[in-house]
Order: sequence, then structure tokens, then C-alpha cells
Amino acid sequence: MQQSISKIAVAGSGNVAWHLSEGLMQCGYQISSVWSRNQEHAKAFAEELGAKCCNQAGELCIDSDVIVIAVSDAAIAEIAQQLSGFEGIVVHTAGSVGMDVFDDGSKHCGVVYPLQTFSKGITVKLSEVPFFVEANTEEVLSVLNEMVSKLSAKIYVADSQQRMLLHVAAVFAGNYSNLMYGIGNKILDTAAVPHDVLYPLIAETARKALSSDPLNTQTGPARRNDRQTLETHLEALAGMPAFAMLYDVLARTITETYK
Amino acid sequence: MQQSISKIAVAGSGNVAWHLSEGLMQCGYQISSVWSRNQEHAKAFAEELGAKCCNQAGELCIDSDVIVIAVSDAAIAEIAQQLSGFEGIVVHTAGSVGMDVFDDGSKHCGVVYPLQTFSKGITVKLSEVPFFVEANTEEVLSVLNEMVSKLSAKIYVADSQQRMLLHVAAVFAGNYSNLMYGIGNKILDTAAVPHDVLYPLIAETARKALSSDPLNTQTGPARRNDRQTLETHLEALAGMPAFAMLYDVLARTITETYK
Repeated sequence: MQQSISKIAVAGSGNVAWHLSEGLMQCGYQISSVWSRNQEHAKAFAEELGAKCCNQAGELCIDSDVIVIAVSDAAIAEIAQQLSGFEGIVVHTAGSVGMDVFDDGSKHCGVVYPLQTFSKGITVKLSEVPFFVEANTEEVLSVLNEMVSKLSAKIYVADSQQRMLLHVAAVFAGNYSNLMYGIGNKILDTAAVPHDVLYPLIAETARKALSSDPLNTQTGPARRNDRQTLETHLEALAGMPAFAMLYDVLARTITETYK
Repeated sequence: MQQSISKIAVAGSGNVAWHLSEGLMQCGYQISSVWSRNQEHAKAFAEELGAKCCNQAGELCIDSDVIVIAVSDAAIAEIAQQLSGFEGIVVHTAGSVGMDVFDDGSKHCGVVYPLQTFSKGITVKLSEVPFFVEANTEEVLSVLNEMVSKLSAKIYVADSQQRMLLHVAAVFAGNYSNLMYGIGNKILDTAAVPHDVLYPLIAETARKALSSDPLNTQTGPARRNDRQTLETHLEALAGMPAFAMLYDVLARTITETYK
């Protein structure tokens, strides 16, 4: 295992793989090789990064100091197995996969989990993204910390259980708030009102959450337990039963919280 | 009814009443008098605005061109009745209350609904807030449009049915996304992780929603229909059954959407 790393290989070609690889390259690391189940993606990805495109995940071990596995959670174990015997450090980037995924033979292993939503083509400032790092030894932790510190100022050490809960929290604060925006838009469509009328509300609600506890600044009919308005809204959603059900469940959650 | 209005009276002393009154005053209108069921609040409010504090809602009719009713939805009808006979314009500010609330005698009436979340002590740029206006005559609509155009560049005409759906959409995009942030924080508490690690995710998710359709940028395990991670998250929430139930319902909504 190298104390000072320079060459990084990447398994995967999804959103996390792209954003991390671009970021690492900008920090001066060489992306030596890439592999992806989708060989079309792998080729395009390798070309963009000036990296070698591997036909097999096992080839990532050649001439690299760190291998980053940024694939779907269910595929990590299989790839980790194909890398067993690698003398460098193997890391994955998943919130909800424990270190035990490396039990089948990785000598030096860890996790580098960026808590952010990544979409292809949308630039994210990695320097502001919190990274959660775990490693099987202090030595590996130190090498990973050095690598990640070049990407971001926000590095935390978190064990697998904490990281899992972080991921669950992120699903609520990210994926599910995004779902709420999407449902808002679909309801606007039924009223023939353009989506952008919700933008100031979305921006202000998010802005407030960064400076105050959201539970203290909650507003709206459920917070006031305004039964009349809640009933009226459920009637208005009669033609959208799935949204009506969600409206009701979420309103009850709020009224219960402030009882 | 005055074509050119200068004196505005306000019923209510909640968040909407405060923010609208402050905004109107800054646009050069005089807040002539205020009334609130809570007389303590009314006094403080009147003092801040340099307005007369009324003991009865009916007194708001004295020496005012427009009366703004910014109270809880259920209380609007009663106050509107107490103002019957008023020669000026009576408006309310509620998303989910129709114009029919004025049927008992308001000659000139309308609605001025600001689509935004207002919290006391948190400044909101009214100039960026979308306002939805309705009126019982073209003449009243024209006067209200002129008044609101001094507050905001974003004025829309919407009927009661559209406004109701707007309000429902705002509950999802605002109140419920805020609930998602609050739940995220509570889960972080169980992992002993500070809330601010979610800030970049919250900010980025909101930012993306302003430039792309949230349904197109949805990420996360439910979007990928990653059953393994979804199951693992439900297990992690075993000690928080209310959150587990919500997690499951919302994940199913997402997987159904992208089937």
C-alpha cells in the first residue's frame, strides 16, 4: 500500500463516478483506468478522463494506488471480490453498504461517502460537499483523509451504522423533498398554472432550513391544525387519490408532531 | 369605492398580516388601523405601524380605503360579516377560501394571495413573491392590481378554484418539504451527527428544482428501485416506526412514478 497516492482507478460510470473522478482529476490525481458494466459508458468516460478503459474489473488493479467502486449498492460485493489480492486501497462510495462488503479479501479498504445529490451535466461544488470516511486501519484512514481533503473541506469519520442513518436522513431531506416539489408541479398542471410560481417558496423554505430548525419554522394548515382547510384540500385532491393519501399522511405527521 | 387608495386597514396580527403590512407601508401606503382577536398582538402591531388599534373589527371601516383580512381561514367569514356595509374594498389573503365568503354583503371585494411562507422575524423579499389576485368586478381588480404591483412584479389573476390548487401545491412544495428536512434532522440526531451536514444537499436539491423538472432529476434508491437499499433503510428505521411508514409510502410513490 502506497502512503502517497497518485493513480486512481474507478469502477462505475454513473453520476457519483463521474463527479468524483472529475473532482479527483482537478485535484491533480491521475485517473489511471476505468471499468463499467456498460462498456459504451466506460469508453466515453475513459476518453473524457484520459484513462485506460478496462474490459474486466480485475484489470483496475494494474498500475493504480486506489480503486474507487462507485456502482449500485447491490453490485459492490461482486466487484470487491474481483479485486481481492489488490495491494492498494479499495473504497466504495455507498451510504448504505457496510465495511463488511470487503470481508472477502481486501487488505486495505474503506468508504468515501459524499452526501450530495449528483446528476449528470449539473456541476456540484465538491469543496462544499460533506464526505464521510471509514477505513479498516488507521493507516488507510490517514491516506483517505489526505485524498478527500483535497476535494472538500468537510470531512467526517463515520462508521457503517452512522453512514446508513446519514443516507436515510439524506433520502428524506433530498429525494423526498424533491418528490414534494414534483407533486407540487403536477398539481399546478391541473390548475394550468406555470411551475415557476413555486420557485420562491421552494427557495425560501430551503433557505430557512439552513438557518433555523425546520420544526420551529413550520407553517401551513397542518401546523395550525386548521381542520377546515385540511378537509378542503383533501376534497380538492379527490381526482388525484395517490396525492390525497400522501397529503393526509403528511398532515397527520405534522399535527402529531405539534400536539 | 376609491379608485386611488392610500389608507389600508388590517384584520389579523399573524405572519401574513405582519409581512404584508410592512410591505405596504414601505410602498407608501398608510396602515390606518389594525384589529386582531389577540389584543396584545394588535397593540404591538399598531404601534410598530403607527396605526390605530381597534377594539372591534367593524371599526376598521372608519377612514380606510381597503381592508385586508389576514386571519385564519375559519375566521374570515365572521369578520367579513362585521365589515358589511363598508364602502371600500375588502380583501382576504387566504389560498383556500373562495370569493363566496364575501356573499353576505361586501360590495367591493377580492383576494390577494401571496404564495410564500412567512415566519415572524424572517425577512422575505415581497418583490419576488407571486401574488394571485381575484376580484368581484373589473374595477376592483384594477385597483387591487395597482396596489399589488407596488409590492411585487409577479401578479397573476387566479379564480378561487385555481388558488385552492395553488395552495395545495404550496403545502407539498413548502410545508411538506420542510417536514422532510425536519425528519432528516431527527434521524441525524439518532446518529449523533450535526444537522449542517444536510445543508448542501437541501440547498442543491432546491437549486436543481428551479432549473430542471424535479421528476427528471430525481435520484436515490427509490428512483433506482434498489430493493436491497430500501429494505436496509426500513430496518434502520425500525426504532422510528412513524418515519419507517413514511419512508415506505414515499419510496413506493417514487417507484410507481418511474415504472
